[in-house]
Amino acid sequence: MRQSEMLLPTLRETPADAEIKSHQLLVRAGYIRQIASGVYSFLPIGRRVLRKVEEIVREEMEKAGAHEMLMAALQPAELWKETGRWDTFGPELMRLHDRHEREFALGATHEEVITSIVRDEVKSYKKLPLTVYQIQNKFRDEKRPRFGLLRGREFLMKDAYSFHDSFESLDGTYQRIFDAYSNIFRRCGLNFRAVIADSGAMGGKDTHEFMVLSEVGEDTIAYSDTSRYAANIEMAPVITEYTKSEAEPKDMEKVETPDQKTMQQVADYLGHTLEEGLKSIMFKVDDRFVMVVTRGDHEVNDVKLKNLYDASLIDLASEEETKEVIGAGFGSLGPVGVPEKVELIADLAVETMVNTTCGANEEGYHYKNVTPGKDFTVDKYADLRFIKEGDPSPDGEGTIKFARGIEVGHVFKLGKFYAEKMDASYLNDQGKSNTMIMGCYGIGVSRTLASIVEQYHDEDGITWPANVAPYQVHVLTLNPKKEEQAALGEELYQKLLAQGVEVLYDDRKERPGVKFADSDLIGIPLRVTIGKRAGEGIVEFKDRATKEQIELESDQVIDHVKQFLNK
Amino acid sequence: MRQSEMLLPTLRETPADAEIKSHQLLVRAGYIRQIASGVYSFLPIGRRVLRKVEEIVREEMEKAGAHEMLMAALQPAELWKETGRWDTFGPELMRLHDRHEREFALGATHEEVITSIVRDEVKSYKKLPLTVYQIQNKFRDEKRPRFGLLRGREFLMKDAYSFHDSFESLDGTYQRIFDAYSNIFRRCGLNFRAVIADSGAMGGKDTHEFMVLSEVGEDTIAYSDTSRYAANIEMAPVITEYTKSEAEPKDMEKVETPDQKTMQQVADYLGHTLEEGLKSIMFKVDDRFVMVVTRGDHEVNDVKLKNLYDASLIDLASEEETKEVIGAGFGSLGPVGVPEKVELIADLAVETMVNTTCGANEEGYHYKNVTPGKDFTVDKYADLRFIKEGDPSPDGEGTIKFARGIEVGHVFKLGKFYAEKMDASYLNDQGKSNTMIMGCYGIGVSRTLASIVEQYHDEDGITWPANVAPYQVHVLTLNPKKEEQAALGEELYQKLLAQGVEVLYDDRKERPGVKFADSDLIGIPLRVTIGKRAGEGIVEFKDRATKEQIELESDQVIDHVKQFLNK
Repeated sequence: MRQSEMLLPTLRETPADAEIKSHQLLVRAGYIRQIASGVYSFLPIGRRVLRKVEEIVREEMEKAGAHEMLMAALQPAELWKETGRWDTFGPELMRLHDRHEREFALGATHEEVITSIVRDEVKSYKKLPLTVYQIQNKFRDEKRPRFGLLRGREFLMKDAYSFHDSFESLDGTYQRIFDAYSNIFRRCGLNFRAVIADSGAMGGKDTHEFMVLSEVGEDTIAYSDTSRYAANIEMAPVITEYTKSEAEPKDMEKVETPDQKTMQQVADYLGHTLEEGLKSIMFKVDDRFVMVVTRGDHEVNDVKLKNLYDASLIDLASEEETKEVIGAGFGSLGPVGVPEKVELIADLAVETMVNTTCGANEEGYHYKNVTPGKDFTVDKYADLRFIKEGDPSPDGEGTIKFARGIEVGHVFKLGKFYAEKMDASYLNDQGKSNTMIMGCYGIGVSRTLASIVEQYHDEDGITWPANVAPYQVHVLTLNPKKEEQAALGEELYQKLLAQGVEVLYDDRKERPGVKFADSDLIGIPLRVTIGKRAGEGIVEFKDRATKEQIELESDQVIDHVKQFLNK
Repeated sequence: MRQSEMLLPTLRETPADAEIKSHQLLVRAGYIRQIASGVYSFLPIGRRVLRKVEEIVREEMEKAGAHEMLMAALQPAELWKETGRWDTFGPELMRLHDRHEREFALGATHEEVITSIVRDEVKSYKKLPLTVYQIQNKFRDEKRPRFGLLRGREFLMKDAYSFHDSFESLDGTYQRIFDAYSNIFRRCGLNFRAVIADSGAMGGKDTHEFMVLSEVGEDTIAYSDTSRYAANIEMAPVITEYTKSEAEPKDMEKVETPDQKTMQQVADYLGHTLEEGLKSIMFKVDDRFVMVVTRGDHEVNDVKLKNLYDASLIDLASEEETKEVIGAGFGSLGPVGVPEKVELIADLAVETMVNTTCGANEEGYHYKNVTPGKDFTVDKYADLRFIKEGDPSPDGEGTIKFARGIEVGHVFKLGKFYAEKMDASYLNDQGKSNTMIMGCYGIGVSRTLASIVEQYHDEDGITWPANVAPYQVHVLTLNPKKEEQAALGEELYQKLLAQGVEVLYDDRKERPGVKFADSDLIGIPLRVTIGKRAGEGIVEFKDRATKEQIELESDQVIDHVKQFLNK
């Protein structure tokens, strides 16, 4: 493609609103432009990369036995009302009326639509399992769109849905899609982890998120330093075996702790470390009050709490509620003498503690020498805390480290959630009606593109991996007014095209400095520069990522390009 | 693809709401499903055909020098307000609010968005011309969605936009896109015409519609029976040279015509043919009253009327308005003695008439022996009528015939309409600021798919042309329970796949009658049937379109398929 004919505007300055590298570079290098908050257009070079990612996704999905379809973005509200999500999805779901005042949602996801199609068309176990996918713009009215393509309001997504007559069948498809996703992200050149994730309110079983490792990621991954284990931090069980203190329990003693508000202040005041004290927090679990006690240095993992109670709603109690129930505010809570209507649960670490400290449920007082079992009775001990770096890995191999991740994919065993609500059933081989079992599988295609930039850039611009680069070779003529440069540039451009190489040809009448800077910014893997030595048939050959460069006779260019692309 | 694993539901019955063949067959053969009025999902086999049409469009657009991009569907209202179309587009434009109550349109078309991008990014004549396109779902809230994919509310469209610094440059791009469109529709196997169309309110110059010839088309095409001339009937000038009647003008005479309401009734009552009388109609042209007089057998072409006055609004006057201005209703109008405030214009044919009849502007009366020039004075004679079958072709070659057409494409010289309203300007080579000149070019991709079905079907189902068929070969095993059939089917399926042939393999456990009927309905060009003679290695080979069938040794199948596909 001749650069002179393309809409490929580059910027020297970093856009003021772009906080992260992928956002900055994709705008600066002419890949995307914002049209409204969280809404982007892909300029031609951006569209090319998006198409490459799309094609990788498509190929791997087809290999996994999924069939492409295309559902509409307009979705009748009635379908969303069947599953209850018209109300529960909240303001993220964009809604509109047609001219007849009929309500529609703009597709944020397509479980309702595909389930309605399948329940109408599939009546027999003979037509199961079935896996379909689509690649299509999705709409979610994010409260705070940001980070460019990472959190937008309209974005390109691949969503897939599978339907089954048994959980075993679902397991098989889940694994095939899981493998397809691994292939997709590997082919995109990404450093990623498939992490165990929270199945949330869907009532599903297994679920994994595919996380691209990146400091700008919004999720924390807990992974083993020696094995393949990785989980969203919310999901990692703690398998630490705590050693019971051998100290002799002393008599509990009430002490004044005036103006000591935080855990750290109290610990310092009473002369012990954070981990020697108890932390007590009041939760509301589906409208029941639960006090959760952990070691002072541990944090309550509310997903674990939610799962323990199989609750649909978990929230911190307000300070007001806490005072009303316990008689003291946040800074003075403790498990000793809590009223019966408050359930008392504690993390496993607490069970092993002796002579610890806790709030006295009275402003300005704490207890010293408190021992569980002796001074208070816990209704239930469970694994309730977040895993920490240094904890043993839940799979028993190695210890836990943390990393930040960008979620680019999600595979999910939905089970019967949608099929039950929407009455999607089939006749089994005995002629008996059964509810279908479903899985769903998403990839943020435009988000994946941005994640690649997060992992592939340097101080000068993007450094695309070859598989997804907009072009494979960037040919630059430094001074196209010089006949020998223009002629050699044109010759090489045509020769490379004839070999099926994707070439961007910078034939613009710009200064060499501008051309080099643009080329680095755009980030095509290989650069062929035609400059002063064009008359001698000498060109420069540069690897964008490594910055290695050599001079070459122009008739060696084709071979070198092929060699580079096949490596 | 194994049919047993696909979501490919066929119906024996014609859906009640499907009036035309493409709608009926695409639903019956499992290509599409409706999710709301005018909103369809493409099932896997439909998605395949759509992708093939998309790819043809993409290839030809790229050859024409257009670059693909992807704009968002969400469009801020502010942009539409800049061009005034927020108000003028009417209820067809779907609108919504985001969570912050900001107004958005759902992209019905993208002139505003692309113009806003280009005005921000292109400042110099050096970056012009520029042509971009996208393939994307569009939204239009049709008052009466119907005919399946032909008139939907969400549909796949290819839209392209070009920007220029001269009308010559626009002419060049227009011609290249025109040629690309011809290639696209030819490759889709369509019988189509590029017809001269109305440039409407856009202030543009040239515009052509690409019309697929079909009885279900909503437009009438006037075409020459011997040349390439074709125009939307609205746009065809009448070049008939009328011979002046040599009769001696008689004295005008007022006659009673009690209860004679229609032109035909009056003609019969007064004893002449329709074409011997005058027809008079009152129009409102931008709020001015205009009486248009034609020969009794001619129809006023309101596009010609609009263009004559360069008007922005043309409407029939109501009977009430007519009575108020003229003193008589529709059935008694005539050009004699109309008040001065009413402009009187007439079609060229009227000028040659002598001793004709017309309404007397008095209920129940007409005039006989009326002669233009003598009994009334016409302000202006012009070509104001619709062309008729049998008229000479406007290009001077042959005579006019009519056909019905489905508009699948439209190329349009927009000129400066959008660029002026949105202030899209560039600096020319003298450093002077000029307004950009634009073109826009659309193809209804999903509508094209439906048009193909309108032209390619028979009593049994669809008969896809090979270029856009979902698969090239349909392999049927009539009784997969018989080992030799299953084995031979599988062998041929694998062999064809290995040759890169796209194969749908009907491995379902269904009766042969069901398989044949489904296969005819789905319409893959070539069928290979493995039946009773599988044991002898004999299969049946059928051309879906011609219904020709032969028996073949199974080892000849690959060669025959290749031969068929290359023909």
